[in-house]
Amino acid sequence: MPAVYSKDIQAKTISEFKIIEKYLSEIGTSYNVKNKVLRGVGDDAAVISLSKNLIVSTDTSVEGVHFLKGIKPEYAAYRACVTALSDLAAMGSKPLAFQLSLSTKESNSKFFSSFKKGLQDFSNDYKIGLIGGDLVKGQYQISVTVFGKQHSNILLRKNACVGDVVCLSGPLGNGLFGMQDFKKFNKKNKTSSAYLKPKALIDYGKFIAGFASSAIDISDGFLQDLGHLSKASNVGFELSSSLIPHNSNLSLNQCLNCGDDYQLIFTVPKKHIQPLMKKMKRKKLAIYQVGNSIKRKNILLDGKIPALSRGYNHF
Amino acid sequence: MPAVYSKDIQAKTISEFKIIEKYLSEIGTSYNVKNKVLRGVGDDAAVISLSKNLIVSTDTSVEGVHFLKGIKPEYAAYRACVTALSDLAAMGSKPLAFQLSLSTKESNSKFFSSFKKGLQDFSNDYKIGLIGGDLVKGQYQISVTVFGKQHSNILLRKNACVGDVVCLSGPLGNGLFGMQDFKKFNKKNKTSSAYLKPKALIDYGKFIAGFASSAIDISDGFLQDLGHLSKASNVGFELSSSLIPHNSNLSLNQCLNCGDDYQLIFTVPKKHIQPLMKKMKRKKLAIYQVGNSIKRKNILLDGKIPALSRGYNHF
Repeated sequence: MPAVYSKDIQAKTISEFKIIEKYLSEIGTSYNVKNKVLRGVGDDAAVISLSKNLIVSTDTSVEGVHFLKGIKPEYAAYRACVTALSDLAAMGSKPLAFQLSLSTKESNSKFFSSFKKGLQDFSNDYKIGLIGGDLVKGQYQISVTVFGKQHSNILLRKNACVGDVVCLSGPLGNGLFGMQDFKKFNKKNKTSSAYLKPKALIDYGKFIAGFASSAIDISDGFLQDLGHLSKASNVGFELSSSLIPHNSNLSLNQCLNCGDDYQLIFTVPKKHIQPLMKKMKRKKLAIYQVGNSIKRKNILLDGKIPALSRGYNHF
Repeated sequence: MPAVYSKDIQAKTISEFKIIEKYLSEIGTSYNVKNKVLRGVGDDAAVISLSKNLIVSTDTSVEGVHFLKGIKPEYAAYRACVTALSDLAAMGSKPLAFQLSLSTKESNSKFFSSFKKGLQDFSNDYKIGLIGGDLVKGQYQISVTVFGKQHSNILLRKNACVGDVVCLSGPLGNGLFGMQDFKKFNKKNKTSSAYLKPKALIDYGKFIAGFASSAIDISDGFLQDLGHLSKASNVGFELSSSLIPHNSNLSLNQCLNCGDDYQLIFTVPKKHIQPLMKKMKRKKLAIYQVGNSIKRKNILLDGKIPALSRGYNHF
């Protein structure tokens, strides 16, 4: 049908975030209020009021997009689960369980044994069990839903205030450098582990939840994810490049725009920063103060708007 | 690497259910107990104890497998959501919210507008809101997670007893006949609606939850899904073909083995069947008694083991 086709190709292509905002938001918002959903679309995870709030998030990883073609199913599974769980870390939540939907064309036991190893390692590392899911035949994709409960405060994206200190949980770029190393040597070592078996900062998130005003995990890239925090909180950020820890084998620019790190960016009200720094030291948890929240709605790096290579945007 | 390749092709291919049982079950079961997960893998949905039990389920629909290539995104979205929600109906649960992960290569607004229409219709029909999800570039797949809370009893698969009456909520085959009609006329009408916009029997499930001993929704085919009930409850079933309502344009055999109906099969203890029948009549809800639970672990149709074309098995 050429008429439809010609309409189709005239239709504008729109970016992933625009699509989510325009087409995948505000579906039944009024029902959410009635059903005691405290937080729906627009944060790292959703919150449903029960006696203890349940926190849930879904993330899909696609072969060749979110994980390298040809990596062991063990690592593909582990990475996909951590990617989803990292959203609970960014909410300061305690994980309870996970569900998985696996799409693959494989049907041999070698594939599934390795895949199971990844799930089991993940399950043991985070002490949560698989509580269901689905298996379908199709392109290799792993969709993971994670469930958690509120620990202390729930860390949303929207509560950063002007004057808050911008903090980072650890260096940027280790995921990307790990991937490069794996591409070169095709084996798991200390360097490539950062990519093959990344960490979701669950304990870290629970700990800072009592102090931070907002938080997000870095999945699409520091600048892009900080942009989400900026938009949700309606503030800007000024950062000093010299304060941002990053992998010394990569340029700062690469590290500001790469995904796969799963570090947390969070803001802390000025009055809480000293007590927090002391407690982090005692707990031996890393924390880097990299800048401040400002009224102007931009992200400024050393006073200038940095080049945004836009992190990962699939559309 | 020919060595690996030769191992790979020697590896046995195994069915979907075997894969789930062998590789996607019992991941962290001990943690589930600790985390108050009352029901994990092995039922239509999982149950987590909170003040009111939360009921969750994930289902993935793949283009060309679970929905026809070329149907309007509106119907693909609606169908995918109902497929997932039908599991909550089978648990007798009240829906609270849903999450969605959409994988597609489309990026034009016409596609997403139509897709949103499907989500919005679903949201309005079941009075629940979308509370999050993910969007990735890949093969057209829709993964939906649904959340519900316990209404009265939770309807599991495992509690059918010998002597219970096997009941069916409505006729079989309307989904398949609707699909055939749509393939022929390529439009939505009363017949094709059964396929394009199926119903999840939420109110029905909530209603029977006070009477039934076990339940399952028909997604893969009556015989196959009844087989799951048989296995979980460790009983068999004897059925009379004359009692099974089905679409008159199709053979009984077709109707026993096709999916897409989303009717409920459930078992009712003998002492509850008369009170239930009366109440169903008053509520104008259909109910068909089609057989009984028996000790022998087979499914018998008119005294014989029926041909099982195995419903839908993707592996």
